Amino acid sequence: MSGVRHLVSIDDLSLPEMRELFAFAAKFQADMRAHSHIGRGLISASLFYEASTRTRLSFESAMLRLGGGTITAADMRTSSASKGESLADTVRVVGGGYADVIVLRHPSEGAARLAAQYSSVPVINAGDGSHEHPTQTLCDLYNLWVERGRIEGLDVVLAGDLRYSRTIHSFAYALARFGANLVCVPAPGYELPDYVVLRLREEFGVEPQRADASRLGDLASSSDAVYLTPQKPHQLSLFTDARGLSIERVDAVYMTRPQTERHPDGARGLENYVQLGKRSLAAESLRDAVVMHPLPRRDEISDDIDSDPRSIYFKQAARGVPIRMAILGYLLGVVKLATDQRPPEPHFYNVPSTTNPCPNPTCIARTEPRHVTAMFKLTSRFPLRAHCAYCSHELKFHFVGCSTTLHYHSPESPDLRKVRSDHFVFLRDADEAARLGYAPAVKPKT
Amino acid sequence: MSGVRHLVSIDDLSLPEMRELFAFAAKFQADMRAHSHIGRGLISASLFYEASTRTRLSFESAMLRLGGGTITAADMRTSSASKGESLADTVRVVGGGYADVIVLRHPSEGAARLAAQYSSVPVINAGDGSHEHPTQTLCDLYNLWVERGRIEGLDVVLAGDLRYSRTIHSFAYALARFGANLVCVPAPGYELPDYVVLRLREEFGVEPQRADASRLGDLASSSDAVYLTPQKPHQLSLFTDARGLSIERVDAVYMTRPQTERHPDGARGLENYVQLGKRSLAAESLRDAVVMHPLPRRDEISDDIDSDPRSIYFKQAARGVPIRMAILGYLLGVVKLATDQRPPEPHFYNVPSTTNPCPNPTCIARTEPRHVTAMFKLTSRFPLRAHCAYCSHELKFHFVGCSTTLHYHSPESPDLRKVRSDHFVFLRDADEAARLGYAPAVKPKT
Amino acid sequence: MSGVRHLVSIDDLSLPEMRELFAFAAKFQADMRAHSHIGRGLISASLFYEASTRTRLSFESAMLRLGGGTITAADMRTSSASKGESLADTVRVVGGGYADVIVLRHPSEGAARLAAQYSSVPVINAGDGSHEHPTQTLCDLYNLWVERGRIEGLDVVLAGDLRYSRTIHSFAYALARFGANLVCVPAPGYELPDYVVLRLREEFGVEPQRADASRLGDLASSSDAVYLTPQKPHQLSLFTDARGLSIERVDAVYMTRPQTERHPDGARGLENYVQLGKRSLAAESLRDAVVMHPLPRRDEISDDIDSDPRSIYFKQAARGVPIRMAILGYLLGVVKLATDQRPPEPHFYNVPSTTNPCPNPTCIARTEPRHVTAMFKLTSRFPLRAHCAYCSHELKFHFVGCSTTLHYHSPESPDLRKVRSDHFVFLRDADEAARLGYAPAVKPKT
Repeated sequence: MSGVRHLVSIDDLSLPEMRELFAFAAKFQADMRAHSHIGRGLISASLFYEASTRTRLSFESAMLRLGGGTITAADMRTSSASKGESLADTVRVVGGGYADVIVLRHPSEGAARLAAQYSSVPVINAGDGSHEHPTQTLCDLYNLWVERGRIEGLDVVLAGDLRYSRTIHSFAYALARFGANLVCVPAPGYELPDYVVLRLREEFGVEPQRADASRLGDLASSSDAVYLTPQKPHQLSLFTDARGLSIERVDAVYMTRPQTERHPDGARGLENYVQLGKRSLAAESLRDAVVMHPLPRRDEISDDIDSDPRSIYFKQAARGVPIRMAILGYLLGVVKLATDQRPPEPHFYNVPSTTNPCPNPTCIARTEPRHVTAMFKLTSRFPLRAHCAYCSHELKFHFVGCSTTLHYHSPESPDLRKVRSDHFVFLRDADEAARLGYAPAVKPKT
Repeated sequence: MSGVRHLVSIDDLSLPEMRELFAFAAKFQADMRAHSHIGRGLISASLFYEASTRTRLSFESAMLRLGGGTITAADMRTSSASKGESLADTVRVVGGGYADVIVLRHPSEGAARLAAQYSSVPVINAGDGSHEHPTQTLCDLYNLWVERGRIEGLDVVLAGDLRYSRTIHSFAYALARFGANLVCVPAPGYELPDYVVLRLREEFGVEPQRADASRLGDLASSSDAVYLTPQKPHQLSLFTDARGLSIERVDAVYMTRPQTERHPDGARGLENYVQLGKRSLAAESLRDAVVMHPLPRRDEISDDIDSDPRSIYFKQAARGVPIRMAILGYLLGVVKLATDQRPPEPHFYNVPSTTNPCPNPTCIARTEPRHVTAMFKLTSRFPLRAHCAYCSHELKFHFVGCSTTLHYHSPESPDLRKVRSDHFVFLRDADEAARLGYAPAVKPKT
Repeated sequence: MSGVRHLVSIDDLSLPEMRELFAFAAKFQADMRAHSHIGRGLISASLFYEASTRTRLSFESAMLRLGGGTITAADMRTSSASKGESLADTVRVVGGGYADVIVLRHPSEGAARLAAQYSSVPVINAGDGSHEHPTQTLCDLYNLWVERGRIEGLDVVLAGDLRYSRTIHSFAYALARFGANLVCVPAPGYELPDYVVLRLREEFGVEPQRADASRLGDLASSSDAVYLTPQKPHQLSLFTDARGLSIERVDAVYMTRPQTERHPDGARGLENYVQLGKRSLAAESLRDAVVMHPLPRRDEISDDIDSDPRSIYFKQAARGVPIRMAILGYLLGVVKLATDQRPPEPHFYNVPSTTNPCPNPTCIARTEPRHVTAMFKLTSRFPLRAHCAYCSHELKFHFVGCSTTLHYHSPESPDLRKVRSDHFVFLRDADEAARLGYAPAVKPKT
């Protein structure tokens, strides 16, 4: 199946690719009726294992605007799946001749990765549990690009439920990758999780700083905000003076609803949830800021700013169609980009053992183990840290074995450097190690 | 959003527009495959908040026959709406770029009016509760036009459940508007409601008369029928002789099923429900009558007349496609009419108060108040009568206040003539008036 | 409605028609994007009274690849049907103008036959209960034709649940009709039912023989298999030698899952169910055999042979699209065949009585009697045997009456020869006969 490009994660696209896709989207948007020859004879299949009408309609509209056709399974759970078919088999059939591209929505994290392993046509992840939704991120970036002409160096406020919003996390990584600055003004108790900050730091060299948010007015519930700057030379220069960091003029405010369905204790503490309205938008620092929201909104954006020219959230949703036209066309091979710069291929390693080490109970590797190859991605060699290749959760283990020597090591052991990544076996504890036939490593003599 | 035409009510089309749409429909029907270039590149969105497969398929077929594409949410209630999104927001997103026209079905009366307020693309009402279903009415009229060559002056029998059938009410208004005569032969206990007769009289000058129905044979359960004549000169001439009115030859029989789902006491008294069959069709007065039914039927039309050439109910349904092609094409701007005669714009007035005066519990203004502006339509100045702009229910009030003087009046008071319509505040009773700060009007000195 | 071709049963196509359809399918398959001009302006309606996403997507993909449009009711049971509409009425409306071809899935046996009686456009049976699914059979045959270049004389192993699999029964009849040989290796307890063997013998002259299956290896759970040979001259010659019959080299293995949903006692005895894997495929006799499966599979095909070049089950499913393009195009009149050889028209006779003689409780004639004409097909004159024209179940009766003489006879009586087929009345017993006014036949004098 090599050669087929998928969009499982936003990381599957390089920055130059994204920039060109933005330009294509803008061209499509300029005349939505003028491109219905591009995809003639091509078919997209919407395989939705949970309902998400908005996302589905947006993709189907994009495919139709390209002149293609769509086949739709809006609720896969009540259909073939009930006869016990695995996702891998479904994808092989649908991708084998029914459709030229598969748009997949699934409640299990990692489902799109699994589908991509088996599909002979491109798979687009339209949301896999609380993991990724790359076209939403792409759409958000496209909106910034349209409104501001660039993404690099922008100051973007992330507001609301920064803790449980998948959209915010993906958007934050992508903004950091593009070199934008993040200003975090969470609702109290809904701060960005540590693992997100850690990944921002490790992968993108982002430095968090306390900043004075008093000029953000009502929007910031306290006078503090966290300012996250990707460590790129052209940005460091912005803060070379000795003054303390203060948020002055921002380019965009990205608001999110409380993700109550994911809150462990229901809707607690939401009485202090930030609300964006006429009053908060009056802050001087927001004078030129566009207001974004992934929708649907509840009360976190008041209706009284709907007609404010800075409120672009309805436009933002509408722009989902041209950007999806661009990505569909690109993966289908009918939109040609000038760049040949691909993102680095992710290196996945199999786990040569019968136990699946992913700790996430809603990972596809655990909800539907048939056809899954336990795989991980190495995120750090010393100490050894690895993430599930499907759902990106960090693997939990106390020891790492070598499948050839049958010795095991502590993740901090320098001896691990001599073990090949594809021989790693993650062992929960000494008991498991013993049960699987692994012995503690003997310190080699030098 | 001005400039965009919607089809919320059949009143949104003028008679000349309808006549031209009939002609276009006939042209489409003559060769259903020949028009697939007209709507190329255009997309319709079916947003169905309750299932209605027949109506949905008819619209989607029409859009496809025009060469356009369709995106479908066959059951919106299980999707985005479950994340708490308002209809106004959904419509702004879908109409913002996903689709070029929205076909909306909703269980709340007035939903289409609300949608039209917020949509930047045409909204077609495909049924809003028990309120309106204008393309059904348009289809019925088109059928008469095809079968009889005109609608003016036709004698049309309305039979069955005239009390609870939305279809019958809308059809009756439209027939009266075109100047056709209505012959009401209800099932016993299922007579046309007073408010429908009242509106027929007030808006279209219709005069009800008792008529001898004995020549209708079995169809009329008693020898009496009610004959409703629009007061137009050319029709009055039909009855200038001194004889009592008797139903002679009729042009069409429009039959309806009992609307048991709306009957307050279930299916009571249906044992005497009229049935149309070989025997009743044998009546001399029905010799040339076409038999119509909005379908689905139950037993009120016997299978034994299915092959009778006068039975056009299956053709009637099939003709829903070409007439919907015409209306879709017209609203999308790709079917051009010669006439520029528009129907009178409905004048709606806001209610400048915080209480919503609509008494209808299933009105969209009450089921989904967010984004609703309480609005009314003035149907009479003296005594003052007003209807909800969404669901058309008559507002119930004992006093009318003026929002500038804060005085209130009886609906019969001549002083009300001095109050501007957009200052009206409808007050249930003196208590509410007092609570809202209104005082009884002092009789002005002259 | 004469003149319109339907695909209710695989018997509705002649062998030359099928062969030409295979050739068209192969042409379509060679370039799936190149045929989107053929069906422009045409519409298919998917009317699915039970969910079957796989089948539906395959048909819709085929229609789109022909350049046509699709309208979809993926779950008819929650829609119009709930307003009490009969299948016959639905089909008359949808086929009257909404669509140019109807693809029908229904839980009742015989539903497609009923629909075809009333539809003015072609009806394609996409599965009627446990009765027929002709395009599945056509697809299976097409796969053999593609892989082997012919169907005549092939040795095809049928393995697994031969008792309850509708697919297997239809496939067996069709293979016999083409003159292929069947090798039955059922899971123990899941043998081909007697009535299937009987029909194979009576209609296609198939001769069952015990055969030595030891060379099939693990696949055959015992050393015995049943070999079914259509009695055609060119095949008899294969076995003219005196040796006992032994299965040597086979051309295809058709595997099925246990149809647990139809098992009277749930999943009993499945522990010995045959499984096809690396080991069983190693048998010498299977060296060139292709492995087929209608999918979805469970464990009866092990994942370890998914990449074996003989495993064509995913290709098999994918080929459902081009063969459905061919049949859709043919029935729509846009794919023209050279042959004018039609299959013999089935002769159906009405039952002139008020009792419906079909013993099958899930036959459409009993689940939805409105618009049904009780009809039968005569399968033997002496003794008299007849099958329901809808569901193909054999009628059960002790006596046969003549509706003109009001006499009744034993099914074995030679006097029955004098009774016209369309006068037959099937009488359960003497009581029923008496109740309906029939008397025993008096032996006529000669």
